[in-house]
Amino acid sequence: MSAALSCGTIHGVGLGPGAPDLLSVRSDRLVRGARHVAYFRKAGRPGQARRIVEGMLRPDVIEIPMEYPVTTEIPLSDPRYNDCLSAFYAECTQRLVMLAQAGEDVVVLCEGDPFFYGSFMHLHTRLAGTVPVAVVPGITGMAGAWNATGIPITWGDDVLTIAMATLPEDELVRRIRDTDALVVMKIGRNLPKLRRAVAAAGREDAAWLVEHAAMPGQRVTRLIEAETVTPYFSILLIHGQGRRP
Amino acid sequence: MSAALSCGTIHGVGLGPGAPDLLSVRSDRLVRGARHVAYFRKAGRPGQARRIVEGMLRPDVIEIPMEYPVTTEIPLSDPRYNDCLSAFYAECTQRLVMLAQAGEDVVVLCEGDPFFYGSFMHLHTRLAGTVPVAVVPGITGMAGAWNATGIPITWGDDVLTIAMATLPEDELVRRIRDTDALVVMKIGRNLPKLRRAVAAAGREDAAWLVEHAAMPGQRVTRLIEAETVTPYFSILLIHGQGRRP
Repeated sequence: MSAALSCGTIHGVGLGPGAPDLLSVRSDRLVRGARHVAYFRKAGRPGQARRIVEGMLRPDVIEIPMEYPVTTEIPLSDPRYNDCLSAFYAECTQRLVMLAQAGEDVVVLCEGDPFFYGSFMHLHTRLAGTVPVAVVPGITGMAGAWNATGIPITWGDDVLTIAMATLPEDELVRRIRDTDALVVMKIGRNLPKLRRAVAAAGREDAAWLVEHAAMPGQRVTRLIEAETVTPYFSILLIHGQGRRP
Repeated sequence: MSAALSCGTIHGVGLGPGAPDLLSVRSDRLVRGARHVAYFRKAGRPGQARRIVEGMLRPDVIEIPMEYPVTTEIPLSDPRYNDCLSAFYAECTQRLVMLAQAGEDVVVLCEGDPFFYGSFMHLHTRLAGTVPVAVVPGITGMAGAWNATGIPITWGDDVLTIAMATLPEDELVRRIRDTDALVVMKIGRNLPKLRRAVAAAGREDAAWLVEHAAMPGQRVTRLIEAETVTPYFSILLIHGQGRRP
Protein backbone atom coordinates (compact mmCIF):
# COMPACT_ATOMS: atom_id res chain seq x y z
CA MET A 1 0.00 0.00 0.00
CA SER A 2 1.53 3.30 -0.99
CA ALA A 3 1.24 6.10 1.52
CA ALA A 4 -0.95 8.82 0.06
CA LEU A 5 0.53 12.28 0.56
CA SER A 6 -1.75 14.08 2.95
CA CYS A 7 -3.07 17.44 1.87
CA GLY A 8 -1.95 20.65 3.58
CA THR A 9 -4.31 23.25 5.02
CA ILE A 10 -4.76 26.83 3.89
CA HIS A 11 -5.18 29.06 6.94
CA GLY A 12 -6.79 32.47 6.59
CA VAL A 13 -5.32 34.17 9.61
CA GLY A 14 -6.76 37.37 11.09
CA LEU A 15 -3.97 39.71 12.23
CA GLY A 16 -6.07 42.34 13.97
CA PRO A 17 -5.82 46.11 13.53
CA GLY A 18 -2.05 46.52 13.40
CA ALA A 19 -0.14 46.03 16.66
CA PRO A 20 1.81 42.73 16.64
CA ASP A 21 0.59 41.83 20.14
CA LEU A 22 -3.03 42.20 19.03
CA LEU A 23 -2.86 38.98 17.02
CA SER A 24 -4.73 36.22 18.80
CA VAL A 25 -2.62 33.54 20.46
CA ARG A 26 -3.83 31.14 17.74
CA SER A 27 -2.87 33.48 14.90
CA ASP A 28 0.47 34.26 16.53
CA ARG A 29 1.37 30.56 16.71
CA LEU A 30 0.35 29.94 13.10
CA VAL A 31 2.27 32.94 11.78
CA ARG A 32 5.46 32.15 13.72
CA GLY A 33 5.37 28.48 12.73
CA ALA A 34 4.51 28.87 9.05
CA ARG A 35 6.85 27.74 6.28
CA HIS A 36 4.67 29.31 3.56
CA VAL A 37 3.21 32.77 4.14
CA ALA A 38 1.05 34.46 1.50
CA TYR A 39 -0.32 38.01 1.54
CA PHE A 40 -1.87 40.60 -0.73
CA ARG A 41 -0.15 43.88 -1.48
CA LYS A 42 -0.11 46.70 -3.95
CA ALA A 43 2.82 46.31 -6.37
CA GLY A 44 5.90 48.09 -5.11
CA ARG A 45 4.59 48.37 -1.52
CA PRO A 46 5.48 46.23 1.50
CA GLY A 47 1.80 45.58 2.20
CA GLN A 48 -0.15 46.30 5.39
CA ALA A 49 -0.53 42.64 6.39
CA ARG A 50 3.14 41.83 5.86
CA ARG A 51 4.18 44.87 7.84
CA ILE A 52 2.21 43.73 10.90
CA VAL A 53 4.16 40.45 11.14
CA GLU A 54 7.59 42.02 10.57
CA GLY A 55 10.11 40.17 12.76
CA MET A 56 7.74 37.27 13.50
CA LEU A 57 8.41 34.95 10.55
CA ARG A 58 10.66 31.88 10.54
CA PRO A 59 14.15 32.45 9.09
CA ASP A 60 13.43 29.82 6.40
CA VAL A 61 9.97 31.17 5.54
CA ILE A 62 8.89 31.15 1.91
CA GLU A 63 6.94 34.32 1.21
CA ILE A 64 4.21 34.48 -1.41
CA PRO A 65 3.32 38.10 -2.14
CA MET A 66 0.13 38.35 -4.20
CA GLU A 67 0.25 41.69 -5.99
CA TYR A 68 -3.01 43.30 -7.09
CA PRO A 69 -2.92 43.81 -10.85
CA VAL A 70 -5.01 46.93 -10.41
CA THR A 71 -6.18 49.09 -7.54
CA THR A 72 -7.36 52.54 -8.49
CA GLU A 73 -6.23 52.74 -12.13
CA ILE A 74 -9.55 51.33 -13.41
CA PRO A 75 -12.78 52.67 -11.86
CA LEU A 76 -14.90 50.16 -9.90
CA SER A 77 -17.77 50.66 -12.33
CA ASP A 78 -15.72 49.48 -15.34
CA PRO A 79 -16.42 45.79 -16.08
CA ARG A 80 -12.72 45.30 -16.78
CA TYR A 81 -12.07 45.96 -13.10
CA ASN A 82 -14.03 42.89 -12.07
CA ASP A 83 -12.62 40.70 -14.87
CA CYS A 84 -9.10 41.65 -14.02
CA LEU A 85 -9.47 41.02 -10.29
CA SER A 86 -11.39 37.82 -10.85
CA ALA A 87 -8.59 36.34 -12.97
CA PHE A 88 -6.07 37.46 -10.38
CA TYR A 89 -7.91 35.78 -7.48
CA ALA A 90 -8.32 32.59 -9.50
CA GLU A 91 -4.60 32.52 -10.21
CA CYS A 92 -3.69 33.13 -6.54
CA THR A 93 -6.09 30.38 -5.48
CA GLN A 94 -4.53 27.95 -7.95
CA ARG A 95 -1.08 28.71 -6.60
CA LEU A 96 -2.11 28.04 -2.99
CA VAL A 97 -4.05 24.90 -3.91
CA MET A 98 -0.99 23.44 -5.62
CA LEU A 99 1.06 24.01 -2.48
CA ALA A 100 -1.57 22.39 -0.27
CA GLN A 101 -1.91 19.45 -2.65
CA ALA A 102 1.86 18.97 -2.35
CA GLY A 103 1.31 18.56 1.40
CA GLU A 104 2.28 22.07 2.52
CA ASP A 105 0.34 24.23 4.96
CA VAL A 106 -0.01 27.85 3.91
CA VAL A 107 -0.79 30.84 6.13
CA VAL A 108 -2.57 33.69 4.36
CA LEU A 109 -2.14 36.95 6.28
CA CYS A 110 -5.35 38.98 6.65
CA GLU A 111 -5.57 42.47 8.16
CA GLY A 112 -8.35 42.69 10.75
CA ASP A 113 -10.81 39.81 10.51
CA PRO A 114 -10.71 37.58 7.40
CA PHE A 115 -14.51 37.44 6.95
CA PHE A 116 -15.18 41.17 7.41
CA TYR A 117 -14.70 43.03 4.08
CA GLY A 118 -11.44 41.09 3.57
CA SER A 119 -9.56 40.15 0.40
CA PHE A 120 -9.08 36.60 1.67
CA MET A 121 -12.80 36.01 1.12
CA HIS A 122 -12.18 36.05 -2.63
CA LEU A 123 -9.78 33.12 -2.19
CA HIS A 124 -11.98 31.41 0.38
CA THR A 125 -14.96 31.25 -1.94
CA ARG A 126 -12.78 29.79 -4.72
CA LEU A 127 -11.14 27.26 -2.37
CA ALA A 128 -14.47 25.60 -1.53
CA GLY A 129 -14.27 21.87 -2.23
CA THR A 130 -10.57 21.85 -3.12
CA VAL A 131 -8.29 21.56 -0.08
CA PRO A 132 -8.80 21.96 3.69
CA VAL A 133 -9.27 25.57 4.75
CA ALA A 134 -9.29 27.01 8.28
CA VAL A 135 -10.05 30.59 9.23
CA VAL A 136 -8.93 32.34 12.43
CA PRO A 137 -10.97 35.43 13.35
CA GLY A 138 -9.18 38.65 14.25
CA ILE A 139 -9.76 41.96 16.01
CA THR A 140 -11.31 44.21 13.37
CA GLY A 141 -9.71 47.45 12.25
CA MET A 142 -12.80 49.29 13.49
CA ALA A 143 -12.32 47.88 17.03
CA GLY A 144 -8.75 49.17 16.85
CA ALA A 145 -10.17 52.54 15.80
CA TRP A 146 -12.74 52.94 18.56
CA ASN A 147 -10.19 51.71 21.08
CA ALA A 148 -7.88 54.49 19.82
CA THR A 149 -10.52 57.12 20.61
CA GLY A 150 -10.80 55.85 24.19
CA ILE A 151 -14.60 55.97 23.94
CA PRO A 152 -17.01 53.01 23.75
CA ILE A 153 -18.73 52.73 20.37
CA THR A 154 -22.13 51.38 21.48
CA TRP A 155 -24.29 51.33 24.63
CA GLY A 156 -27.57 49.63 25.54
CA ASP A 157 -29.88 49.44 22.52
CA ASP A 158 -27.75 51.52 20.14
CA VAL A 159 -27.96 50.58 16.48
CA LEU A 160 -24.51 50.48 14.85
CA THR A 161 -24.34 50.95 11.08
CA ILE A 162 -21.20 49.99 9.18
CA ALA A 163 -21.01 51.52 5.71
CA MET A 164 -18.33 51.92 3.06
CA ALA A 165 -17.36 55.39 1.84
CA THR A 166 -17.64 54.00 -1.70
CA LEU A 167 -21.46 54.27 -1.45
CA PRO A 168 -23.26 57.10 -3.30
CA GLU A 169 -23.36 60.37 -1.37
CA ASP A 170 -27.14 60.47 -0.87
CA GLU A 171 -27.11 56.91 0.43
CA LEU A 172 -24.36 57.85 2.90
CA VAL A 173 -26.41 60.83 4.11
CA ARG A 174 -29.45 58.61 4.63
CA ARG A 175 -27.45 55.99 6.55
CA ILE A 176 -25.69 58.55 8.74
CA ARG A 177 -29.02 60.17 9.64
CA ASP A 178 -30.66 56.86 10.49
CA THR A 179 -28.27 55.33 13.03
CA ASP A 180 -27.10 55.80 16.61
CA ALA A 181 -23.46 54.77 16.09
CA LEU A 182 -21.55 54.71 12.82
CA VAL A 183 -18.42 53.19 11.31
CA VAL A 184 -17.31 54.13 7.80
CA MET A 185 -14.45 52.28 6.11
CA LYS A 186 -12.73 52.35 2.68
CA ILE A 187 -12.35 56.11 2.92
CA GLY A 188 -9.14 57.28 1.13
CA ARG A 189 -10.11 59.30 -1.92
CA ASN A 190 -13.77 59.28 -0.82
CA LEU A 191 -13.03 61.64 2.08
CA PRO A 192 -14.47 64.84 0.51
CA LYS A 193 -17.73 63.02 -0.34
CA LEU A 194 -17.90 61.53 3.15
CA ARG A 195 -17.33 64.94 4.78
CA ARG A 196 -20.19 66.41 2.78
CA ALA A 197 -22.44 63.49 3.74
CA VAL A 198 -21.66 63.79 7.46
CA ALA A 199 -22.32 67.55 7.31
CA ALA A 200 -25.58 67.08 5.40
CA ALA A 201 -26.69 64.61 8.06
CA GLY A 202 -25.91 67.24 10.71
CA ARG A 203 -23.43 65.08 12.61
CA GLU A 204 -20.10 66.78 11.89
CA ASP A 205 -19.49 67.59 15.56
CA ALA A 206 -19.75 63.95 16.60
CA ALA A 207 -17.53 62.43 13.89
CA TRP A 208 -13.95 61.26 14.43
CA LEU A 209 -11.36 60.18 11.88
CA VAL A 210 -8.88 57.49 12.99
CA GLU A 211 -5.75 56.92 10.92
CA HIS A 212 -3.28 54.04 11.42
CA ALA A 213 -5.21 52.60 14.37
CA ALA A 214 -3.06 50.45 16.69
CA MET A 215 0.02 51.26 14.57
CA PRO A 216 2.92 53.69 14.78
CA GLY A 217 1.55 57.01 13.60
CA GLN A 218 -1.92 56.39 15.07
CA ARG A 219 -3.89 59.60 14.83
CA VAL A 220 -7.34 60.49 16.12
CA THR A 221 -8.84 63.74 14.81
CA ARG A 222 -12.26 65.35 14.88
CA LEU A 223 -13.54 65.18 11.31
CA ILE A 224 -13.98 68.95 11.21
CA GLU A 225 -10.27 69.34 12.04
CA ALA A 226 -9.02 66.56 9.75
CA GLU A 227 -6.83 67.18 6.73
CA THR A 228 -8.12 66.68 3.23
CA VAL A 229 -6.07 63.58 2.47
CA THR A 230 -6.32 60.30 4.38
CA PRO A 231 -5.21 56.69 3.81
CA TYR A 232 -7.55 54.02 2.40
CA PHE A 233 -7.54 52.23 5.77
CA SER A 234 -8.72 55.27 7.76
CA ILE A 235 -11.91 54.77 9.71
CA LEU A 236 -14.64 57.28 10.53
CA LEU A 237 -16.55 56.85 13.81
CA ILE A 238 -19.60 58.34 15.43
CA HIS A 239 -20.01 56.97 18.95
CA GLY A 240 -23.42 55.85 20.22
CA GLN A 241 -24.97 57.66 23.16
CA GLY A 242 -27.38 54.95 24.31
CA ARG A 243 -28.71 53.87 27.68
CA ARG A 244 -26.13 53.76 30.44
CA PRO A 245 -27.13 53.20 34.06
CA MET B 1 11.99 62.85 50.28
CA SER B 2 9.45 60.11 50.89
CA ALA B 3 8.68 57.79 47.97
CA ALA B 4 5.07 58.27 46.91
CA LEU B 5 3.30 54.98 46.30
CA SER B 6 2.74 54.78 42.58
CA CYS B 7 -0.79 54.13 41.43
CA GLY B 8 -1.77 50.83 39.80
CA THR B 9 -3.53 50.53 36.45
CA ILE B 10 -6.99 49.13 35.78
CA HIS B 11 -6.91 47.10 32.57
CA GLY B 12 -10.13 46.37 30.69
CA VAL B 13 -9.08 43.27 28.83
CA GLY B 14 -10.98 41.94 25.80
CA LEU B 15 -11.13 38.13 25.90
CA GLY B 16 -12.67 37.53 22.49
CA PRO B 17 -15.60 35.26 21.68
CA GLY B 18 -14.81 32.29 23.91
CA ALA B 19 -11.87 30.09 22.88
CA PRO B 20 -8.86 30.63 25.19
CA ASP B 21 -6.47 30.87 22.23
CA LEU B 22 -8.54 33.68 20.70
CA LEU B 23 -7.35 36.14 23.36
CA SER B 24 -4.84 38.55 21.87
CA VAL B 25 -1.22 38.03 22.82
CA ARG B 26 -1.47 41.24 24.88
CA SER B 27 -4.61 40.12 26.73
CA ASP B 28 -3.15 36.65 27.29
CA ARG B 29 -0.05 38.13 28.96
CA LEU B 30 -2.09 40.46 31.16
CA VAL B 31 -4.49 37.72 32.27
CA ARG B 32 -1.74 35.19 33.06
CA GLY B 33 0.31 37.77 34.96
CA ALA B 34 -2.47 39.40 36.97
CA ARG B 35 -2.55 39.30 40.76
CA HIS B 36 -6.04 40.88 40.88
CA VAL B 37 -8.68 39.70 38.42
CA ALA B 38 -12.19 41.17 38.44
CA TYR B 39 -15.21 40.06 36.38
CA PHE B 40 -18.97 40.43 36.21
CA ARG B 41 -21.28 37.49 36.70
CA LYS B 42 -24.81 36.62 37.56
CA ALA B 43 -25.09 35.52 41.20
CA GLY B 44 -24.64 31.78 41.55
CA ARG B 45 -23.12 31.39 38.06
CA PRO B 46 -19.43 30.97 37.17
CA GLY B 47 -19.67 33.82 34.63
CA GLN B 48 -18.91 33.73 30.90
CA ALA B 49 -15.73 35.83 31.19
CA ARG B 50 -14.30 33.82 34.09
CA ARG B 51 -15.02 30.58 32.24
CA ILE B 52 -12.95 31.68 29.23
CA VAL B 53 -9.79 32.11 31.34
CA GLU B 54 -10.20 28.85 33.29
CA GLY B 55 -6.73 27.36 33.87
CA MET B 56 -4.91 30.56 32.87
CA LEU B 57 -4.79 32.44 36.19
CA ARG B 58 -1.85 32.62 38.61
CA PRO B 59 -2.04 30.23 41.57
CA ASP B 60 -1.97 33.19 43.96
CA VAL B 61 -4.55 35.22 42.04
CA ILE B 62 -7.07 37.25 44.02
CA GLU B 63 -10.43 37.05 42.27
CA ILE B 64 -12.99 39.83 42.46
CA PRO B 65 -16.37 38.59 41.21
CA MET B 66 -18.78 41.47 40.70
CA GLU B 67 -22.29 40.01 40.94
CA TYR B 68 -25.15 41.80 39.22
CA PRO B 69 -27.76 42.72 41.82
CA VAL B 70 -30.46 42.27 39.17
CA THR B 71 -30.65 40.86 35.65
CA THR B 72 -34.12 40.00 34.48
CA GLU B 73 -36.12 40.32 37.74
CA ILE B 74 -36.91 44.01 37.10
CA PRO B 75 -37.95 45.06 33.59
CA LEU B 76 -35.59 47.43 31.72
CA SER B 77 -38.34 50.06 31.56
CA ASP B 78 -38.64 50.26 35.37
CA PRO B 79 -36.59 53.22 36.72
CA ARG B 80 -35.51 51.03 39.65
CA TYR B 81 -33.54 48.92 37.16
CA ASN B 82 -31.29 51.83 36.28
CA ASP B 83 -30.95 53.04 39.88
CA CYS B 84 -30.05 49.60 41.08
CA LEU B 85 -27.43 48.98 38.37
CA SER B 86 -26.03 52.48 38.69
CA ALA B 87 -25.36 52.02 42.42
CA PHE B 88 -23.81 48.62 41.69
CA TYR B 89 -21.42 49.98 39.06
CA ALA B 90 -20.43 52.87 41.34
CA GLU B 91 -19.63 50.43 44.14
CA CYS B 92 -17.57 48.16 41.82
CA THR B 93 -15.67 51.18 40.55
CA GLN B 94 -14.90 52.31 44.08
CA ARG B 95 -13.55 48.86 44.96
CA LEU B 96 -11.20 48.80 41.95
CA VAL B 97 -10.06 52.40 42.49
CA MET B 98 -9.07 51.59 46.07
CA LEU B 99 -6.94 48.68 44.86
CA ALA B 100 -5.26 50.84 42.22
CA GLN B 101 -4.65 53.62 44.72
CA ALA B 102 -2.94 51.04 46.94
CA GLY B 103 -0.53 50.42 44.03
CA GLU B 104 -2.12 47.26 42.66
CA ASP B 105 -2.83 46.58 38.97
CA VAL B 106 -6.24 45.06 38.29
CA VAL B 107 -7.32 43.10 35.22
CA VAL B 108 -11.04 43.33 34.45
CA LEU B 109 -12.13 40.42 32.21
CA CYS B 110 -14.40 41.46 29.33
CA GLU B 111 -16.12 39.04 26.93
CA GLY B 112 -15.60 40.07 23.31
CA ASP B 113 -14.39 43.65 22.95
CA PRO B 114 -14.61 45.95 26.02
CA PHE B 115 -15.97 48.97 24.08
CA PHE B 116 -18.64 47.10 22.10
CA TYR B 117 -21.85 46.75 24.18
CA GLY B 118 -19.71 45.70 27.15
CA SER B 119 -20.36 45.95 30.90
CA PHE B 120 -16.86 47.26 31.46
CA MET B 121 -17.92 50.52 29.80
CA HIS B 122 -20.01 51.31 32.89
CA LEU B 123 -16.86 51.14 35.01
CA HIS B 124 -14.73 52.90 32.40
CA THR B 125 -16.95 55.96 32.34
CA ARG B 126 -16.88 56.15 36.16
CA LEU B 127 -13.10 55.67 36.29
CA ALA B 128 -12.40 58.80 34.23
CA GLY B 129 -10.03 61.10 36.13
CA THR B 130 -9.42 58.71 39.04
CA VAL B 131 -6.63 56.18 38.30
CA PRO B 132 -4.80 55.05 35.14
CA VAL B 133 -6.97 52.90 32.86
CA ALA B 134 -5.88 50.87 29.81
CA VAL B 135 -8.17 48.99 27.45
CA VAL B 136 -7.18 46.05 25.24
CA PRO B 137 -9.52 45.41 22.29
CA GLY B 138 -10.77 41.90 21.65
CA ILE B 139 -12.31 39.77 18.90
CA THR B 140 -16.04 40.48 19.12
CA GLY B 141 -18.57 37.74 19.79
CA MET B 142 -20.15 38.50 16.40
CA ALA B 143 -16.84 37.80 14.63
CA GLY B 144 -16.75 34.47 16.47
CA ALA B 145 -20.30 33.87 15.23
CA TRP B 146 -19.73 34.58 11.54
CA ASN B 147 -16.52 32.61 11.70
CA ALA B 148 -18.57 29.68 13.07
CA THR B 149 -20.85 29.80 10.00
CA GLY B 150 -17.85 29.55 7.67
CA ILE B 151 -19.30 32.35 5.52
CA PRO B 152 -17.99 35.94 5.22
CA ILE B 153 -20.38 38.49 6.71
CA THR B 154 -19.79 41.41 4.30
CA TRP B 155 -18.54 41.98 0.74
CA GLY B 156 -17.77 45.06 -1.33
CA ASP B 157 -20.18 47.89 -0.50
CA ASP B 158 -22.46 45.90 1.82
CA VAL B 159 -24.05 47.83 4.66
CA LEU B 160 -23.88 45.92 7.95
CA THR B 161 -26.45 46.78 10.63
CA ILE B 162 -25.90 45.70 14.22
CA ALA B 163 -29.05 45.82 16.32
CA MET B 164 -30.11 44.53 19.72
CA ALA B 165 -33.09 42.17 20.02
CA THR B 166 -34.28 44.38 22.88
CA LEU B 167 -35.53 46.94 20.30
CA PRO B 168 -39.29 47.20 19.59
CA GLU B 169 -40.55 44.69 17.03
CA ASP B 170 -41.50 47.24 14.35
CA GLU B 171 -38.09 48.89 14.64
CA LEU B 172 -36.43 45.49 14.20
CA VAL B 173 -38.53 44.83 11.08
CA ARG B 174 -37.54 48.17 9.59
CA ARG B 175 -33.85 47.61 10.31
CA ILE B 176 -33.84 44.07 8.94
CA ARG B 177 -35.53 45.25 5.71
CA ASP B 178 -33.11 48.11 5.22
CA THR B 179 -29.72 46.41 5.36
CA ASP B 180 -27.53 44.08 3.34
CA ALA B 181 -25.95 42.19 6.24
CA LEU B 182 -27.28 41.93 9.78
CA VAL B 183 -26.09 41.04 13.27
CA VAL B 184 -28.55 40.86 16.17
CA MET B 185 -27.32 40.44 19.73
CA LYS B 186 -28.91 40.29 23.24
CA ILE B 187 -31.39 37.69 22.03
CA GLY B 188 -32.30 35.28 24.88
CA ARG B 189 -35.95 35.81 25.81
CA ASN B 190 -36.42 38.13 22.80
CA LEU B 191 -36.16 35.21 20.37
CA PRO B 192 -39.91 34.92 19.56
CA LYS B 193 -40.11 38.65 18.79
CA LEU B 194 -36.96 38.48 16.67
CA ARG B 195 -38.29 35.52 14.70
CA ARG B 196 -41.49 37.41 13.90
CA ALA B 197 -39.47 40.46 12.84
CA VAL B 198 -37.20 38.45 10.53
CA ALA B 199 -40.25 36.76 8.98
CA ALA B 200 -42.07 40.08 8.54
CA ALA B 201 -38.99 41.45 6.78
CA GLY B 202 -39.08 38.42 4.45
CA ARG B 203 -35.57 37.25 5.30
CA GLU B 204 -36.21 34.05 7.26
CA ASP B 205 -34.39 31.90 4.71
CA ALA B 206 -31.18 33.89 5.03
CA ALA B 207 -31.01 34.05 8.83
CA TRP B 208 -28.72 31.94 11.02
CA LEU B 209 -28.64 31.54 14.78
CA VAL B 210 -25.23 30.95 16.37
CA GLU B 211 -25.08 29.68 19.95
CA HIS B 212 -21.92 29.42 22.07
CA ALA B 213 -19.66 30.69 19.24
CA ALA B 214 -16.02 29.60 19.59
CA MET B 215 -16.91 27.57 22.73
CA PRO B 216 -17.64 23.95 23.52
CA GLY B 217 -21.22 23.37 22.40
CA GLN B 218 -20.96 25.79 19.45
CA ARG B 219 -24.08 25.42 17.36
CA VAL B 220 -25.03 26.99 14.03
CA THR B 221 -28.69 26.62 12.98
CA ARG B 222 -30.90 28.13 10.32
CA LEU B 223 -33.33 30.37 12.19
CA ILE B 224 -36.30 28.49 10.73
CA GLU B 225 -34.93 25.27 12.23
CA ALA B 226 -33.87 26.78 15.57
CA GLU B 227 -35.47 25.83 18.88
CA THR B 228 -37.61 28.25 20.79
CA VAL B 229 -35.15 28.84 23.62
CA THR B 230 -31.68 30.31 23.19
CA PRO B 231 -29.03 31.83 25.51
CA TYR B 232 -28.67 35.60 26.00
CA PHE B 233 -25.32 35.51 24.18
CA SER B 234 -26.72 33.90 21.00
CA ILE B 235 -26.18 35.88 17.83
CA LEU B 236 -28.36 36.12 14.73
CA LEU B 237 -26.67 36.67 11.38
CA ILE B 238 -27.74 37.47 7.85
CA HIS B 239 -24.73 37.41 5.52
CA GLY B 240 -24.24 40.13 2.93
CA GLN B 241 -24.24 39.21 -0.75
CA GLY B 242 -22.35 42.20 -2.14
CA ARG B 243 -19.92 42.70 -5.00
CA ARG B 244 -17.36 39.95 -5.41
CA PRO B 245 -15.03 39.77 -8.40
